Amino acid sequence: MAKPKKTPRPKAETPKGFRDYFGAEVTQRAEMLRKIAGVYHRYGFDALESSGVETVEALGKFLPDVDRPNEGVFAWQEDADADKPGDWLALRYDLTAPLARVYAQHRNDLPTPYRRYAMGPVWRNEKPGPGRFRQFYQCDADTVGAPSVAADAEICAMLADCLEEVGIERGDYIVRVNNRKVLNGVMEVAGVLDPSDPDKFAAERGIVLRAIDKLDRLGVEGVRALLGEGRKDDSGDFTDGAGLTDTQADVIMRFVDANDEVDRRILLGRQSESGDEATGSFELPSAVNLSPELEETIHIASAHARNKLVVDYLAGIVEDSHTGKEGVAELVTIYELVESQGYLADRIRIDPSVVRGLGYYTGPVFEAELTFEIKDDKGRVRNFGSVAGGGRYDDLVKRFTGQEVPATGVSIGVDRLLAALHAKGRLTSDTVGPVVVTVMDKARMADYQAMVAELRQAGIRAEVYLGNPKNFGNQLKYADRRGSPVAVIAGGDEFDSGMIQIKDLILGAKIAENATLEEWKDRPSQYEVPRSDLVAKVREILELER
Amino acid sequence: MAKPKKTPRPKAETPKGFRDYFGAEVTQRAEMLRKIAGVYHRYGFDALESSGVETVEALGKFLPDVDRPNEGVFAWQEDADADKPGDWLALRYDLTAPLARVYAQHRNDLPTPYRRYAMGPVWRNEKPGPGRFRQFYQCDADTVGAPSVAADAEICAMLADCLEEVGIERGDYIVRVNNRKVLNGVMEVAGVLDPSDPDKFAAERGIVLRAIDKLDRLGVEGVRALLGEGRKDDSGDFTDGAGLTDTQADVIMRFVDANDEVDRRILLGRQSESGDEATGSFELPSAVNLSPELEETIHIASAHARNKLVVDYLAGIVEDSHTGKEGVAELVTIYELVESQGYLADRIRIDPSVVRGLGYYTGPVFEAELTFEIKDDKGRVRNFGSVAGGGRYDDLVKRFTGQEVPATGVSIGVDRLLAALHAKGRLTSDTVGPVVVTVMDKARMADYQAMVAELRQAGIRAEVYLGNPKNFGNQLKYADRRGSPVAVIAGGDEFDSGMIQIKDLILGAKIAENATLEEWKDRPSQYEVPRSDLVAKVREILELER
Repeated sequence: MAKPKKTPRPKAETPKGFRDYFGAEVTQRAEMLRKIAGVYHRYGFDALESSGVETVEALGKFLPDVDRPNEGVFAWQEDADADKPGDWLALRYDLTAPLARVYAQHRNDLPTPYRRYAMGPVWRNEKPGPGRFRQFYQCDADTVGAPSVAADAEICAMLADCLEEVGIERGDYIVRVNNRKVLNGVMEVAGVLDPSDPDKFAAERGIVLRAIDKLDRLGVEGVRALLGEGRKDDSGDFTDGAGLTDTQADVIMRFVDANDEVDRRILLGRQSESGDEATGSFELPSAVNLSPELEETIHIASAHARNKLVVDYLAGIVEDSHTGKEGVAELVTIYELVESQGYLADRIRIDPSVVRGLGYYTGPVFEAELTFEIKDDKGRVRNFGSVAGGGRYDDLVKRFTGQEVPATGVSIGVDRLLAALHAKGRLTSDTVGPVVVTVMDKARMADYQAMVAELRQAGIRAEVYLGNPKNFGNQLKYADRRGSPVAVIAGGDEFDSGMIQIKDLILGAKIAENATLEEWKDRPSQYEVPRSDLVAKVREILELER
Repeated sequence: MAKPKKTPRPKAETPKGFRDYFGAEVTQRAEMLRKIAGVYHRYGFDALESSGVETVEALGKFLPDVDRPNEGVFAWQEDADADKPGDWLALRYDLTAPLARVYAQHRNDLPTPYRRYAMGPVWRNEKPGPGRFRQFYQCDADTVGAPSVAADAEICAMLADCLEEVGIERGDYIVRVNNRKVLNGVMEVAGVLDPSDPDKFAAERGIVLRAIDKLDRLGVEGVRALLGEGRKDDSGDFTDGAGLTDTQADVIMRFVDANDEVDRRILLGRQSESGDEATGSFELPSAVNLSPELEETIHIASAHARNKLVVDYLAGIVEDSHTGKEGVAELVTIYELVESQGYLADRIRIDPSVVRGLGYYTGPVFEAELTFEIKDDKGRVRNFGSVAGGGRYDDLVKRFTGQEVPATGVSIGVDRLLAALHAKGRLTSDTVGPVVVTVMDKARMADYQAMVAELRQAGIRAEVYLGNPKNFGNQLKYADRRGSPVAVIAGGDEFDSGMIQIKDLILGAKIAENATLEEWKDRPSQYEVPRSDLVAKVREILELER
């Protein structure tokens, strides 16, 4: 008989694009999700958890990248039943498509409007890249069944609250709000959208939207080139343009220029077209050193004035488009509603440069950006950028029920937000390790276990060393690796005399690092105490080192 | 041209065997996981989160049901690369197989021993049934790299702590501990295990293990029948037996009888074979009404005595098997270690009837059972049963590295535990709804938003009604459906006078239910207060109704 083939050992590897999260990475994310859930809850949102698996039929074709509607999901076919082929199932790629399915399925049992939040992993079958994973967390809140833009305004305010709740300080973020209807109005005015035939100019519109979205990266010149004939990038590659005439491109560029123009108006104190005094604009020479007090005054004044100046400017561009005017009116309602709750333009800002990739948005769109600078992997300074986004999507439930159901929502990228807090030094990678009770005498294991039990019952994280106790040095190395603040040592002598040794490992490490420092000479890092003082002494050291 | 086919609407349904969780179902589970994580953390365990997707190669064939090693997972093949076929990927079916992969992959960066906990969904591609889902939560803690049974003992103590932490009272659960080595020793003595040829008698051993596992359901007679020729059940179906001789079956039956025999010995005060006085056995007539004090004394005495009596009895059965004696010695160590921490046999009990299905266990096995009775869906009284289980599995990492790595761990079934707390009335399905600010005048939306903002800033859950405000009755129906404790009402009159109406909905509901009760006649359920008293008055009502 042939010798049975040896099976090769399996490779111990995650699939490509997946990763493991350890210790603080897990607990900090859980803590962040808990805080965000707390804000969502306070705003009246209820928790929903659907499963990771949906039918491909229910998920539909609303994948984020509009160019590849059928790709991007992990999917498989169920085994065939006796009489019919198995369903195609897939891992959810976001939390919005499942919400549409849930709402359509359970709508008779749910309140209207239905405010729900959901948090959990989603999966994308995409080419993995550095920092780009095929499983990641989303943390969403959506309101289904509320047609009023008050629902959008509420979500923008809630988003600002969430960012502050997890530790992003006021001034370090901005929630930027735009409206698809304004974008459509601008395109209508420019002649790249025909309201009577929405499919006309679709390709041109796609190029225009993508060009606007690249303003940050390409600048005004680059966008202008993409609107016209096209653009050659630094590598020499050529990107086709939308082929707009100069007149058409001028309309788009006026729109693209909105932010800069408003900034100029605020700084130079020019009166906006509307001439409304409530805008708080004022005269100011452009190149002056300002006192901190004056800067603060300008900040508040411009926060009050800015949103109004922006919508007035936009209204001027889209005055010939019904859709565009409707969009501007919605933006006015949004900023008025959030201002009534105390959120001025320094936190929630009307900003025409927000595009958002997803095809399904139909009204207001919003994005939270962190405004502080960080250094990237290569040491270059850059803005941290977007950590959350969302908007109104009134057509998603209709797929199932045939009835249009208005909906709006936001998705917070918790992993990016965690990275931001790390970059700002607000989170450390360390968790406090356990007190380690070392093992000098294997036969005394019951005594060591009794010690850790006492510590734990006092709420102190503690463990017995459970490796091979022969080499005591290994036990202290282990304690070091675990980040243990304290080691407890008890051998035969100690048990005879009823005493134990308690070693302050944090102080010990400090002394080892700075052996010359006089102040530590008088402070011992190891104590002998009666066994009965175990908990009290350990607690004393922990409080001292905190 | 042919008319384009109308696409039929997608069905709004979860895939078969999956479900959605709403509101309190989600938050109560999250809260339970947080509490269990707290206990795991206190015992020195670190969090680990691996992805839901693994390579089929890494997951291996350790599926729980040993009869169908290749089935049971959701799997699919990746797209082929230029030169080689795509990997097969699958959803994890438990958290242990991924741990083995993680440890093998990262072992040089992890402490040894490595204590880790993990919680999250797992997926089983099985036929769904009532209450049986294809995605469910697991919540595991494992120690990798600790050969000593002190690690097993620690996990048993931690399991007891977890149950109490989530609200299972002492006396309502028992952690039952057995050892695969004892089972093997018994089979060796009975002649259905040949240590020199472990593959011999494999089928018989399978039948014997399954028979022992069915003791609860089939009783002593049923088990005996399965050890011999086989058994015809009530429906007339015949199950083949292991075909053991009477002498062989007697050995197994002595083992199966262990619990009952020990109970008899404790109650009748017979001296155990060892005659050890420390067992605390005592004389007692069998049919006497006992005072509560005496019952308590017996309870404590038997809790002290029981584990020793059981292992003595087991030692008597396996005295001719090296493996069996080793297993008994391990059980002695385990109960001594947990007793040193205060866990007696009323919480952690050596119990030979624990088998645990999984093929990979190699030493101690344990199971947490809830001992209180509940009524099932059909109104029948039954024991709630198992909510957690685990054991030692020393071979799982070896698949990857070739080196044997000792490991032991536990998995808590949080969904069953939640069901148990519901059955005991310790959890209600309701969450407190938000305060609802109703909309009497759409144009005043900014004022209503300012009210909810104030409430939220005071930490009170609150929302504006965002549905169509035309029908005020619908707004109150909505508040009712949401379980709102308070509704705020302000229309034109109120705004003019600077007053608002605050309606106590909980009291209102009570009055509606018991309209005759005198005591409520004097207590109004609706108040008119100045706008500036909004937060204070709402808080007052919430505190009153709590």
